Amino acid sequence: MLKDERVSFTGIDHIGIAVTNLEKAIDVWQHVLSIPLSGIEEVPSQEVRLAVFKVGDSRIELVEATSPDSPIAKFIANRGEGVHHIALRTQKCSTTLQTLNAKGVALIDKTARSGAGNSHIGFVHPKSLGGVLLEIIER
Amino acid sequence: MLKDERVSFTGIDHIGIAVTNLEKAIDVWQHVLSIPLSGIEEVPSQEVRLAVFKVGDSRIELVEATSPDSPIAKFIANRGEGVHHIALRTQKCSTTLQTLNAKGVALIDKTARSGAGNSHIGFVHPKSLGGVLLEIIER
Repeated sequence: MLKDERVSFTGIDHIGIAVTNLEKAIDVWQHVLSIPLSGIEEVPSQEVRLAVFKVGDSRIELVEATSPDSPIAKFIANRGEGVHHIALRTQKCSTTLQTLNAKGVALIDKTARSGAGNSHIGFVHPKSLGGVLLEIIER
Repeated sequence: MLKDERVSFTGIDHIGIAVTNLEKAIDVWQHVLSIPLSGIEEVPSQEVRLAVFKVGDSRIELVEATSPDSPIAKFIANRGEGVHHIALRTQKCSTTLQTLNAKGVALIDKTARSGAGNSHIGFVHPKSLGGVLLEIIER
C-alpha cells in the first residue's frame, strides 16, 4: 500500500504521565532524574495542571487533575498513576484527523481544537489503537 | 539543587507498546497511521518479538510476547494492551544507573546489560517513578 502523504508525523512530541501529586512527581523528575523543569501550566478546559520537562526535541508532561471530574482523575481511579497518552507531532493536524476519520479510525476529536501554547490538537480513541491514547499535535 | 551531570538524557529513544497480535498492530501503525515499518526483531532473552517504527529521531516499538512467561504476556494479562515502557536516551548508561542507585532509586537493573542492536540498557522500577516503567538506553 502507498504511504498516505496526508498523514505524516515528524516526531514524538510528548508523553503525558498521570500523577496524583504534581509537586512530588516534579521533585523526582527534576532532582532524581536531573531533567530541568521547563514550566508549569494550568489547562482549565481539561481540569488539569501540567509540568513540562524538555528532553531533546521531545517533552515529558506530568499531568495532575484539578477536579474529581477531570479525565486524569478518572484515569488514575481506574488504572493508577502512569503513562496516560502519547503525542505525535504533525505539520497538519486538521488534515490528519480528516484522513484518519475517512479511514474509519475512531476519533475523540473529529476536528482539531486548541491546545496549550497555540497548538492544534486532536485525540484518537484508544479502541482504534490497541489501548493507546494518541494525541496528534501541530505546534 | 545543582543539576547532576552524571545523569543526562538526550531524548526520548522509544515508547514500548504491548500488543497481543503483532501483525494486526503493525497493520494499523503502518497502513492507518502511515508510519513506515523499519524492521521486526526477536529478543529471545525477553521472550518477545518487536516491530520498530521510526518517527523523527525516536521510535515506536510494538512488543508481542512469544511465551506466556514473557513480561509482556504478564503485563497484558494484568492491564491489557497499551504503553508498556518509555525509554530515555543517554550517552552513559552505566554511570546513570550507578548514580540513580546511589540516590536510592529502585532499579530493576543495577548494572547495564546488552539490549537490541548493540545498545546498553537498564530499567528503573515503576515504584520509583509513579507507575512508569523507564528504560535507560545508550546506543
